[in-house]
Amino acid sequence: MKRFIKYSEWEIIEENFIPENNEAAESIFSIGNGKMGHRANFEEFYSGKTLQGNYISGVYYPDKTRVGWWKNGYPDYFAKIINAPDWRGIKITVGKNKLDLFKCKISDFKRVLNMKHGYLYKHLLAELPDGKQVKVESFRFLSIVNDELGAIKYLITPFNFSSEIQVLIDIDADVSNKDSNYGEKFWTEVDKSFVPYPYIVAQTKKTFFNLCTAINYSFEQDGEEFKPTKFLSYEHEKYLGYKFFINAEQQKTITIYKFAAVTSSLNYSNDALIEHAFAHLENASEVGFDELFDEHKKVWSNKWTDADVEISGDIAAQQAIRFNIFNLLQTYTGKDERLNIGPKGFTGEKYGGVTYWDTEAYCLPFYLSTSPQNVAQNLVKYRYKHLQKAIENAQKLGFNNGAALFPMVTINGEECHNEWEITFEEIHRNGAIAYAIYNYVTYTGDKDYLSDFGLEVLIAISRFWKQRVNFSEQKQKYVMLGVTGPNEYENNVNNNWYTSTIAIWTLKYTIEVINFVKNKNIDDFKRISVASSFYENEIENWQKIIDNMYLPFDEKRNIFLQQDGFLDKEFLNAQSLLPQERPLHQNWSWDRILRSCFIKQADVVQGLFFFENNFDEQTIKRNFDFYESMTVHESSLSACTHSIVASKIKNYKKAYELYLRTARLDLDDYNNEVKEGLHVTSMAGTWMSVVYGFGGMRVKDGKISFNPFLPEKWNSYSFKILYRNCKLEIIVKKDEVSIINHSDAEIDLLIYDNEHDILPNDELTLVGLLSI
Amino acid sequence: MKRFIKYSEWEIIEENFIPENNEAAESIFSIGNGKMGHRANFEEFYSGKTLQGNYISGVYYPDKTRVGWWKNGYPDYFAKIINAPDWRGIKITVGKNKLDLFKCKISDFKRVLNMKHGYLYKHLLAELPDGKQVKVESFRFLSIVNDELGAIKYLITPFNFSSEIQVLIDIDADVSNKDSNYGEKFWTEVDKSFVPYPYIVAQTKKTFFNLCTAINYSFEQDGEEFKPTKFLSYEHEKYLGYKFFINAEQQKTITIYKFAAVTSSLNYSNDALIEHAFAHLENASEVGFDELFDEHKKVWSNKWTDADVEISGDIAAQQAIRFNIFNLLQTYTGKDERLNIGPKGFTGEKYGGVTYWDTEAYCLPFYLSTSPQNVAQNLVKYRYKHLQKAIENAQKLGFNNGAALFPMVTINGEECHNEWEITFEEIHRNGAIAYAIYNYVTYTGDKDYLSDFGLEVLIAISRFWKQRVNFSEQKQKYVMLGVTGPNEYENNVNNNWYTSTIAIWTLKYTIEVINFVKNKNIDDFKRISVASSFYENEIENWQKIIDNMYLPFDEKRNIFLQQDGFLDKEFLNAQSLLPQERPLHQNWSWDRILRSCFIKQADVVQGLFFFENNFDEQTIKRNFDFYESMTVHESSLSACTHSIVASKIKNYKKAYELYLRTARLDLDDYNNEVKEGLHVTSMAGTWMSVVYGFGGMRVKDGKISFNPFLPEKWNSYSFKILYRNCKLEIIVKKDEVSIINHSDAEIDLLIYDNEHDILPNDELTLVGLLSI
Repeated sequence: MKRFIKYSEWEIIEENFIPENNEAAESIFSIGNGKMGHRANFEEFYSGKTLQGNYISGVYYPDKTRVGWWKNGYPDYFAKIINAPDWRGIKITVGKNKLDLFKCKISDFKRVLNMKHGYLYKHLLAELPDGKQVKVESFRFLSIVNDELGAIKYLITPFNFSSEIQVLIDIDADVSNKDSNYGEKFWTEVDKSFVPYPYIVAQTKKTFFNLCTAINYSFEQDGEEFKPTKFLSYEHEKYLGYKFFINAEQQKTITIYKFAAVTSSLNYSNDALIEHAFAHLENASEVGFDELFDEHKKVWSNKWTDADVEISGDIAAQQAIRFNIFNLLQTYTGKDERLNIGPKGFTGEKYGGVTYWDTEAYCLPFYLSTSPQNVAQNLVKYRYKHLQKAIENAQKLGFNNGAALFPMVTINGEECHNEWEITFEEIHRNGAIAYAIYNYVTYTGDKDYLSDFGLEVLIAISRFWKQRVNFSEQKQKYVMLGVTGPNEYENNVNNNWYTSTIAIWTLKYTIEVINFVKNKNIDDFKRISVASSFYENEIENWQKIIDNMYLPFDEKRNIFLQQDGFLDKEFLNAQSLLPQERPLHQNWSWDRILRSCFIKQADVVQGLFFFENNFDEQTIKRNFDFYESMTVHESSLSACTHSIVASKIKNYKKAYELYLRTARLDLDDYNNEVKEGLHVTSMAGTWMSVVYGFGGMRVKDGKISFNPFLPEKWNSYSFKILYRNCKLEIIVKKDEVSIINHSDAEIDLLIYDNEHDILPNDELTLVGLLSI
Repeated sequence: MKRFIKYSEWEIIEENFIPENNEAAESIFSIGNGKMGHRANFEEFYSGKTLQGNYISGVYYPDKTRVGWWKNGYPDYFAKIINAPDWRGIKITVGKNKLDLFKCKISDFKRVLNMKHGYLYKHLLAELPDGKQVKVESFRFLSIVNDELGAIKYLITPFNFSSEIQVLIDIDADVSNKDSNYGEKFWTEVDKSFVPYPYIVAQTKKTFFNLCTAINYSFEQDGEEFKPTKFLSYEHEKYLGYKFFINAEQQKTITIYKFAAVTSSLNYSNDALIEHAFAHLENASEVGFDELFDEHKKVWSNKWTDADVEISGDIAAQQAIRFNIFNLLQTYTGKDERLNIGPKGFTGEKYGGVTYWDTEAYCLPFYLSTSPQNVAQNLVKYRYKHLQKAIENAQKLGFNNGAALFPMVTINGEECHNEWEITFEEIHRNGAIAYAIYNYVTYTGDKDYLSDFGLEVLIAISRFWKQRVNFSEQKQKYVMLGVTGPNEYENNVNNNWYTSTIAIWTLKYTIEVINFVKNKNIDDFKRISVASSFYENEIENWQKIIDNMYLPFDEKRNIFLQQDGFLDKEFLNAQSLLPQERPLHQNWSWDRILRSCFIKQADVVQGLFFFENNFDEQTIKRNFDFYESMTVHESSLSACTHSIVASKIKNYKKAYELYLRTARLDLDDYNNEVKEGLHVTSMAGTWMSVVYGFGGMRVKDGKISFNPFLPEKWNSYSFKILYRNCKLEIIVKKDEVSIINHSDAEIDLLIYDNEHDILPNDELTLVGLLSI
């Protein structure tokens, strides 16, 4: 835990520059626009500790895997979103002294992430070794309007001197990833020039993505543009820049504008990259920084109209929830169906491969409720497009007949992970992918998706489950051996309750969807049957498994058992752990973790959340209490799910405690690791713990339903959701719940399980009904 | 499977040079003397595929570990016995053509490993591209008399031409390991010179072992020494050599002698290395090659006097058993108590770290029966000397109070392995180390070892077991969770029968030894108690575990269960596997292997072997039959143990079938991997399958006991053993067993469980009693 962020409703604020916090701040102040993303590295020279990060979504490198002991079936590479050519540099030198923010004496420092308007701001006063003081102010944004454009407005003022200053404006493509397995650099230079605009076209090795990074710049003083006449140009491999010499006067501010356009071969042919980049620059120069910035801010404001969560009476919680939402919105916009959401978004290199089960289990609900339908659909369809690769992946492991195992980690449909206990065993991900189809269709009502895309995926996953179980003569039941559940503090267990439960659920749901599609349009069903070589007798085998699957159960405690043998453990309460032992994975040997009862995130609780309709509240409560007591929440995906289930069983205190933990995970750096990047996908879980947890939102029989309560410490909160063709705002106050229908359609919904009807642009308020 | 070795009783023979076999042959024809070891790389130029290997026992490099995902408790390095400076080069050039054995046309080729006398021989006729034919013959040995000395006699004859030939005689310290994790070279040059003898002193990085490699040479023709007057000297970093120009006449043989002395800082101070190396060279030159060679051969002959196994009627089996014995004798001589036996001896780089549980479980019995007592004692004491490190190793994992976990792989007492399922879980090794103490004391009768060294180790291991189990409320028994048994095709299982069994056995034996030492000499006991901070109340806890340990059992089949949950598997017979699926680890995904019933080597069978006295024959038979049917023997340590147990239960056919598999594993390259090196430690298992298996040798109540049978296909076999102060020869013929007492002491022994007494230098023959 490390707190240095000031509270504010719409801003993330750092005051007092402390170099030890710099890498953490670089993560926290990251900006992005769905296509490009930056860590908040300085424009200036910085010789202290920094993790340079500048990423282009979809541009990756298949870094040769490094692994101690190879297992048959391991992939050859780990796909990494890579550090891209850096166009942010505005590097100042005064006399012989570089303005190196690590070496200068920094005062009057403020760094701000403006979440409402999506930009990064800072100001500071830097004292050079010779006593000269320079005042600096900067604004930076990655345009949410034109996602191939970024801009910086940089103001520099000699504070206590007048002299020539040197301004280096550059593009540096000679960048590397810190986590390169073999210390390799991933870019080669294809082309570069200073005219008409400075640009570099760089190419990734192996994957041959071409990326053009072009810049334009201008100088202004007293509202007048000027062109420095004295300058040098520098170039070497993968680098070019201009150094301008400018006579600067004490207390007179020079403003520098730097625009960058970044175009990639993901979107253009190689020979059109430069031309498109130049077009962006020309347009930007014409329109000017201020207008571009205004447009950008306006679009961001609009995003909040659909997605904001307001909390009154708890500024830390307010800041945190907006920080979570902001990062989700800037990481994924759904514009490009080839993209997905990495666990760290654009904020670090860790978990370089893009897609994990996080997308399906945590992120999808957020985008379903805050973005147009096609955004969520793109996320779900992403896996449909990888179906063939998932079938090949399963084949490599020995499965057949069109069974699919979607990868644990992927960027292009191929598996990237290689720890056998995860790659081959953490197969519950397949279930989450099936569940996301269900979730998408339930929320949107878009049943066409099933015949268009969903059913083929469901059949392939059901085939996998069918082959992955075997019949135990001893138990006279189907069993699933060698599994790792979401609780990665247990590996290679037999009969993981969650995995087996989601497997049966998938089989049932697939049969249900088959029947639905068949009844709706037999031609669709025939087409899918041919495409999947599906024969209806497969259903019989699935049904046998559904009817005879073994699920471990503790009769004595009347609870579901996480896995076979779990009762052999010594049961301890997580509260018995000492602070210096936490997080366990940093302080205990793996041996001790595996043998202990402690749970990283509780499988069973995840299942209670997904399948809550199958269990009565007492069952959920018994199981939650048992598992929560042993859960250390050392997965960023843990606390949010537990919080939602705690809300469900009316354990409001616990729900709030767990919410706090998930909401400020990064802002307060709970696990001393935020410098590696933000936990972007788990932020969706935080959002869920408000909307699904405190707000009790569900879809029941096609109707949106709310069951809200107000955490004790809050005065009120509200959230906005899109549901089908309606925009709703839910406001929860003490003893009062209001729902505003911001749309032109009438909505029929459930509040505390009672049906209500709200007319277009009308508001409904229930008083005194809060169930807390 | 790849057969190219000719059968011969005392020799390993390769005829017809086929480059594809070269790397395999380099392994198979390896020579060593306990301190130095060579793969059979050519003296000549060779541009084809080769794995250069030249090793000095105890000289290692801590190669920075390469691992995909780090777990707390993993070591930083993997210790490797490294490829040492190469002194073997005698490289011929005729005109402009190098005598490159890969590029020449080779005829009349023969490579011989003479096992009786411990040397490598080859002859060949090589045709150069210009048609010139060169006849070559060479003898090479690593002196078993002076283990810092090696020698080559090299004969070269221009076959169809006369001309000047160039002979390059060199030392090359610019060598590397193929398996270097980061492509690093491990040696730096310290010193080199041509005078008075060419030498290089090289130093390992990080570990700073100094190694002096010095050579001397001479030329002879027609029995007369001569000195070539024309020569060049070459030197560059870590290299030096002389190129001699010699006028050679058609059909006139030139003989070259090359001696090498290798001294290391393991045995001398750095400033004495050169002087000692020179002393060896001077002595060698004085004595001359022939005499040195004769001495060497004589010592080898003597070794066979104590260790030979003769088989009549099956030349393949005869060759194989001698090949196994030969490799054991040349790998470890027991002279240096700091050394141990690597799984590949001096024949390859794989499993670079030296010591595995192979030493205790497989090798120890061989050395007990074929070498003076101190040799086996050194092996056992090796772990005593690492006790403090083993305690630290356990502490890293969270154990305390002097509990010791000996490493899975080590060269200096520190753990080198990093797969969590092995490093942290394959803890049965601790039991094997305790068992080796028992085995040593039982065989030798050296009970002083217990108070001198053994008990401290036993206490530390028992403490580990005590902390490694926990009490299961559900089972009301002690359980051992998260274990990998010798069957590495199951990972992270609960209650592995073998591991739990050896754990209880250790606790019992430790208590027994404590009582023994206490009764024998209370001062010894007090000293040990102080040294180990041992309090007798620890025994109570151990006893509770002994009395209440859970061991999985199948009531229905009346067999011990390999682990919890094993009965959930689908049971198949290993014979149902297709040839193209074998070995499974090369053809199946790890996922499929783990979930299958197939067994790499059967844990339970290993336990039946170690603890056979605890079980009646029917129990052993039931368990053996059950597990053998599922065992694929893809560990080189598997077939031998199964063979011994098959012998025990009188399944002679199976015993013989498994013997064949283990005996010619390398000679016939069963698993297509012999090019990586020989399975040296498993060779001791082969020897055991003859002596303990066919011969039925055991120690019972301090008496050596035999229970031999004759495999159907053999006419007879005999083996020699040292037992305490006796040398015995056991000859088994059809319906006849003879025991010759080759010593001056009377021996009291058991044959087919009947007591017999054999006078000094007398022979006993039993006729018609064979139990087959």
